Amino acid sequence: MIIAVIGNSSCTPEEAKLAETVGELLARRGATIICGGLGGVMEAVCRGAKSEGGLTVGILPGQDSSMANPWVDIPVVTGIGEARNVAVVKSAQAVIAIGGSYGTLSEIAYALKSRIPIIGLNTWSLSRSGRQDNSIIRVQSAVEAVDKAISLAKRRKNHEIASLRSQ
Amino acid sequence: MIIAVIGNSSCTPEEAKLAETVGELLARRGATIICGGLGGVMEAVCRGAKSEGGLTVGILPGQDSSMANPWVDIPVVTGIGEARNVAVVKSAQAVIAIGGSYGTLSEIAYALKSRIPIIGLNTWSLSRSGRQDNSIIRVQSAVEAVDKAISLAKRRKNHEIASLRSQ
Amino acid sequence: MIIAVIGNSSCTPEEAKLAETVGELLARRGATIICGGLGGVMEAVCRGAKSEGGLTVGILPGQDSSMANPWVDIPVVTGIGEARNVAVVKSAQAVIAIGGSYGTLSEIAYALKSRIPIIGLNTWSLSRSGRQDNSIIRVQSAVEAVDKAISLAKRRKNHEIASLRSQ
Amino acid sequence: MIIAVIGNSSCTPEEAKLAETVGELLARRGATIICGGLGGVMEAVCRGAKSEGGLTVGILPGQDSSMANPWVDIPVVTGIGEARNVAVVKSAQAVIAIGGSYGTLSEIAYALKSRIPIIGLNTWSLSRSGRQDNSIIRVQSAVEAVDKAISLAKRRKNHEIASLRSQ
Repeated sequence: MIIAVIGNSSCTPEEAKLAETVGELLARRGATIICGGLGGVMEAVCRGAKSEGGLTVGILPGQDSSMANPWVDIPVVTGIGEARNVAVVKSAQAVIAIGGSYGTLSEIAYALKSRIPIIGLNTWSLSRSGRQDNSIIRVQSAVEAVDKAISLAKRRKNHEIASLRSQ
Repeated sequence: MIIAVIGNSSCTPEEAKLAETVGELLARRGATIICGGLGGVMEAVCRGAKSEGGLTVGILPGQDSSMANPWVDIPVVTGIGEARNVAVVKSAQAVIAIGGSYGTLSEIAYALKSRIPIIGLNTWSLSRSGRQDNSIIRVQSAVEAVDKAISLAKRRKNHEIASLRSQ
Repeated sequence: MIIAVIGNSSCTPEEAKLAETVGELLARRGATIICGGLGGVMEAVCRGAKSEGGLTVGILPGQDSSMANPWVDIPVVTGIGEARNVAVVKSAQAVIAIGGSYGTLSEIAYALKSRIPIIGLNTWSLSRSGRQDNSIIRVQSAVEAVDKAISLAKRRKNHEIASLRSQ
Repeated sequence: MIIAVIGNSSCTPEEAKLAETVGELLARRGATIICGGLGGVMEAVCRGAKSEGGLTVGILPGQDSSMANPWVDIPVVTGIGEARNVAVVKSAQAVIAIGGSYGTLSEIAYALKSRIPIIGLNTWSLSRSGRQDNSIIRVQSAVEAVDKAISLAKRRKNHEIASLRSQ
């Protein structure tokens, strides 16, 4: 199971703590973590995952792996800049957003577009024409985020297998 | 001057009318239109622009130009799917969003990230941690959208020239 | 009709002269030129096209249009680096390669993969398992390159229209 | 250490055997395998690696992981089509090409452009202006390919660390 964790490359200490705990919990549950591979939330989630022996994948925007944080096991060097945000979310069965700025917002948009479940911890709220969009599943703690992400990812995985079988 | 117009590939008749008028007005003001090249808002804005002799560029997601709407003069076939949304906004000096779903939201996010002025007509509202994000410049009519877009695009163009000169 | 012209961003005076003539001839025949938008062969072909009132599109690898050569009418800012090479060739009905290094080689490969006709002026030769690959159509002059490109692009365009009609 | 193995999605039984052996040998040497994630050579190298307990990453062109071969541990879903070829080679410290058609040729071109060592087993030969380009390191066996790839990847990794330290 692959879970994406998204958030800003510069973040508050509270967001970093949250991300680190999310990383620890995901690793304990056996999930592979995918992220944008840089600092801030991305670094914290990788550090947390590695402290529990997890596997971490960083989808990097640049031309080489020099910007990868030290807890990325597999740096994927895309060379496609911000367009790599698509790959971060599409590679996951569920996405957890922690805080985040406009880069994270583009990833949330891509996840919603691809109907990949997205769980939000203190992140963007969306509305259109005065109506709230409640597609982001809001949670209040790292434990809740990981529980939701894993149960939705499992459901998605089973759904995928079912649709492959019926082809 | 290049102005991006973004919006959904399926849209309401009101949105189509609005997009068509935006296209007409932009063309009359001498702006080149760039968009995602498909149907809905993208088609309407191209049709409007062509009715006034404008030039239209469609940044297509697919592998060939067969999905381009008939009013695209220059179909750019990217082959990179939704990741082409980055190119739509980065190629413009200002962006006008009309309505729009999650694809449009990703383009809004990329515009904000790249500090390209974005004008919104009945499109997404954003807030984070309970605080409204007012970076999208909200307008109520096609005329207002085009006026804003052109004046902001000019300012941006001048700023770019100034920073090139000072290098 | 859109013709791509590909080649290195630093080139010999002979290659620049050749590219400029190709640009002039394509513009006189009414073709829109698409290229990578930078210097060398790309700049020379755009300069030639503009001297005859042609239209030029530059598919740029970087994050803004500051690297575009001054003869690019429509700078498309992709932000995806070398991956933009796919878009340069896929947007054209035929491709002319002039000299070129490894970037040009990747574009030749993409053109061959997408079955877009490619005409070569003093460019790469390919062989595999000791057998020559003759898919690149070799010519000796700018006139010959443009003649071949335009006649093959027309055939391709007609073919596309035919396959759209039969759907 | 990450080694990319590139080749066609449909291949001869000889190429598949070669790729499988390359996968086995790389896994025994502790290298992570990265590839395009599809069939043919990509499938064979992953199968070989998994038979020796290796780790495999597939950089997929499509919109979901359904096209990944069954021996891919980490399917990276890019959604960017052929443009994902850049990411396959840029993520590796060395590249092994086995046979291959035009897609593989584009990857060879990107590797040469990025100065990533590339080892060739019965793959493309290149020449320009009548002069042979000997940048592809030619070998005759799977053992030789893996030896070369690993020793060049180590040298590259050390070089990268040295240049990071000197910054």
